[in-house]
Amino acid sequence: MAEKITPRSENYSQWYVDIILNAKLADYSPVKGSMVIRPHGYALWEAIQRNLDDMFKATGHTNAYFPLLIPESFIKKEAEHVEGFSPELAVVTHAGGEELEEPLVIRPTSETIIWSMYKKWIQSYRDLPLLINQWANVLRWEKRTRLFLRTSEFLWQEGHTAHATEKEAREETLRMLNVYKEFAEKWMAIPVLTGVKSPSEKFAGAIDTYAIEAMMQDHKALQAGTSHFLGQNFAKAFDVTFQNDTGSLEYVWATSWGVSTRLVGALIMTHSDDKGLVVPPKLSPVEAVIIPIFRNKNKEEVVGYARKLYDRMKDEFRVKLDADDSNSPGWKFAEWEMLGCPVRIELGPRDMENGKAVLVRRDNGEKEIVDIEAVPARVGELLESIQTTLFQRALENRETHTYDVDSYDRFKAIFDGEGGFIRMPWCGDAECEAAIKEETKATIRLIPFEQPELKGAVCPRCGKPADKIAVYARSY
Amino acid sequence: MAEKITPRSENYSQWYVDIILNAKLADYSPVKGSMVIRPHGYALWEAIQRNLDDMFKATGHTNAYFPLLIPESFIKKEAEHVEGFSPELAVVTHAGGEELEEPLVIRPTSETIIWSMYKKWIQSYRDLPLLINQWANVLRWEKRTRLFLRTSEFLWQEGHTAHATEKEAREETLRMLNVYKEFAEKWMAIPVLTGVKSPSEKFAGAIDTYAIEAMMQDHKALQAGTSHFLGQNFAKAFDVTFQNDTGSLEYVWATSWGVSTRLVGALIMTHSDDKGLVVPPKLSPVEAVIIPIFRNKNKEEVVGYARKLYDRMKDEFRVKLDADDSNSPGWKFAEWEMLGCPVRIELGPRDMENGKAVLVRRDNGEKEIVDIEAVPARVGELLESIQTTLFQRALENRETHTYDVDSYDRFKAIFDGEGGFIRMPWCGDAECEAAIKEETKATIRLIPFEQPELKGAVCPRCGKPADKIAVYARSY
Ligand SMILES: [Zn+2]
Ligand SMILES: [Zn+2]
Repeated sequence: MAEKITPRSENYSQWYVDIILNAKLADYSPVKGSMVIRPHGYALWEAIQRNLDDMFKATGHTNAYFPLLIPESFIKKEAEHVEGFSPELAVVTHAGGEELEEPLVIRPTSETIIWSMYKKWIQSYRDLPLLINQWANVLRWEKRTRLFLRTSEFLWQEGHTAHATEKEAREETLRMLNVYKEFAEKWMAIPVLTGVKSPSEKFAGAIDTYAIEAMMQDHKALQAGTSHFLGQNFAKAFDVTFQNDTGSLEYVWATSWGVSTRLVGALIMTHSDDKGLVVPPKLSPVEAVIIPIFRNKNKEEVVGYARKLYDRMKDEFRVKLDADDSNSPGWKFAEWEMLGCPVRIELGPRDMENGKAVLVRRDNGEKEIVDIEAVPARVGELLESIQTTLFQRALENRETHTYDVDSYDRFKAIFDGEGGFIRMPWCGDAECEAAIKEETKATIRLIPFEQPELKGAVCPRCGKPADKIAVYARSY
Repeated sequence: MAEKITPRSENYSQWYVDIILNAKLADYSPVKGSMVIRPHGYALWEAIQRNLDDMFKATGHTNAYFPLLIPESFIKKEAEHVEGFSPELAVVTHAGGEELEEPLVIRPTSETIIWSMYKKWIQSYRDLPLLINQWANVLRWEKRTRLFLRTSEFLWQEGHTAHATEKEAREETLRMLNVYKEFAEKWMAIPVLTGVKSPSEKFAGAIDTYAIEAMMQDHKALQAGTSHFLGQNFAKAFDVTFQNDTGSLEYVWATSWGVSTRLVGALIMTHSDDKGLVVPPKLSPVEAVIIPIFRNKNKEEVVGYARKLYDRMKDEFRVKLDADDSNSPGWKFAEWEMLGCPVRIELGPRDMENGKAVLVRRDNGEKEIVDIEAVPARVGELLESIQTTLFQRALENRETHTYDVDSYDRFKAIFDGEGGFIRMPWCGDAECEAAIKEETKATIRLIPFEQPELKGAVCPRCGKPADKIAVYARSY
């Protein structure tokens, strides 16, 4: 039975944790920094994984698997890379009962081990592009963790591609960013901004990092996926060259891109409400649940009526019949709301007599009574409508909390209040950016691709000329 | 282009490695004991994973994910378990730039961490059975490795179930053993024996270990999957009790079961030949490849003819059109044979004129010419026939190399010669078993479920009475 969920208005962070624990999405583990993903949470990750994987394959990528453990020396081969990761590494010093000659680190990401293999596999332009993705666990030691959003170990996918030209690699970087955007918006019903990170927020070892950024219900930003143009950094560190079609040797161009189980956190935070989880229909393990309402004396008939509907629907929908008689209908309603099931179908004795069913939407609680024959078609419509509504609601939240600002006082006032995404001219100075972070806890989430003309604009904080709008927010 | 593959008759071990490297299934990595699974090999694992996962779900299991790192103290909680794994553990002693208070081991298997969570999740008989599976990487340090068959890190699935009664847990153990047998035989076309392991070969921490065992082409055995009845060992170590329906507390009963990327090794070794990999159609990433044979002058027509066939087939089959003109048809034939594609469809200008196609089976090289209209239906028949033929061939190999033996001299003579599976009465004495291993390198692979009546039988090695037939073999 659902325990009490702290309302969002009271304590948003606690609400988030309550949803996760009560909907049995995940649990704390006895291992510091690591979480357990429970079946209901893992089912969401499996749905994300399967659909995203189809999109990767449709864009020409194949999956492979590289070792978990990486020689410490590999991490050190690419200077920015080692700086970025050193404080986060977990190190294996003993194995097989002996101390190792060289310590092995658990992969924080796999660029180094993968590029050491690409050196073996790439000789000629005919071997390019090489378009490989990996689904794997990675580990970055964290002191302060938050279920799904920040844990030492997490699950992700990491694409690592190799190209003959800078142009192709840059195209790939943006292609995958767009795959992420499309997936976030069409499947997860989460609207996202796209753009490039400021140099101080980019991935260690990348030339340019692009990201998709979403706004949560508390108006904070969540980085939901990144795509990196790596230039020739890793090719040079691992000496990966290819013979081009004129016979001379060149360094290979690289990209990498990833999303993680963090997406499950984004999904929870974007759509859920004070009754529990809300899942976009396209990713929901169960799209509709049929709950027969019966007493002992009419159990057989009512459950039979429900089963007939179940049989009609089961090939077309992910549908479940909950005819368990150890729980009351009211308990089940609350439980399936907690679990986020998009549509509930109630069937009572009176509905049976009248040839009707009651349909209830999870997103807004609207009820309607429909002819039993019309249920499958109507459920199909409702699922589509819920998918759209969730997206629209999230988009509206973002739009009503996005501000064009040209005064630093106004900027600070917004973060002292409700917060949001602030579009503001930026001088391009990393020190000014750091000062803003220090003063307001807001960071540049990205510099959007689409920029207005900025004639004579200045950075409101420092007064220096600004030639770009940046989007600022507090973030997860 | 395919490099030379060492013939099986010359050097079976080298043949195996040659297949893997030339078909690009896997590669050696710079990390001692770990391999890289390349896209073509990973596609086999994905096919195994997806189909097996469907069978797990059909039997009521759900997936979850538990931490990679386990506190060292957990491993020590179950006495046999720690003895079994201690020499194989990889230990993280440093993380986040500091030495850890308690070392963490990389999971060699997840019983301990999972049962520490089950303690939280199980209170009442209503919480049982708990039927959870995990797809994950695990690590057991190995000095001598062999691609796919024995590597320090490997990918696997591990089912961990909790039950209210011994009977239910024992039923689950055998249910999953049968799922493995069905999968091996129907999908992988690998006939397997089932039975129970001798106490000295069982999993550390189990009461009984059951296994599926397959015979490779060199007549050695390969353990392809195991299912363990764990009794209450882990429930007692982690104090996991439940309130039964009369209100009193009992310890929970457990099973665990797993298969790994080793299955890919079994698949390679069972079916492949001196020309390369042979993949059972049901698991083949590409079921049929269409290779148009053209010159510059007729390229457009012939490729058009091929593309028409491709379009007709692509919804029904996993089919590929290889119209790349940088390689000759002969090169492609060899390459697709190397990759193990079940059916090759050759389309030349003469075939086009006559409305024909040439179909070639990978399993036996048989060619046939069929009307172009009949190709899809005929390919469907061939795929089924190849699936059956591969299974029959493997079964015949096993049957012609399985011997009922009641003399230890004969036993030794068989292992001095071609080897095989030997069915021989066993005294039940672990020392006698160890001596046989020492003297012949053969071990008891399993004690089959089906036993003949053994009146007055003796163990041929020691002369003591024997009440069971055991199956002996040398093994991978
Ligand atoms: Zn400034
Ligand atoms: Zn004996």
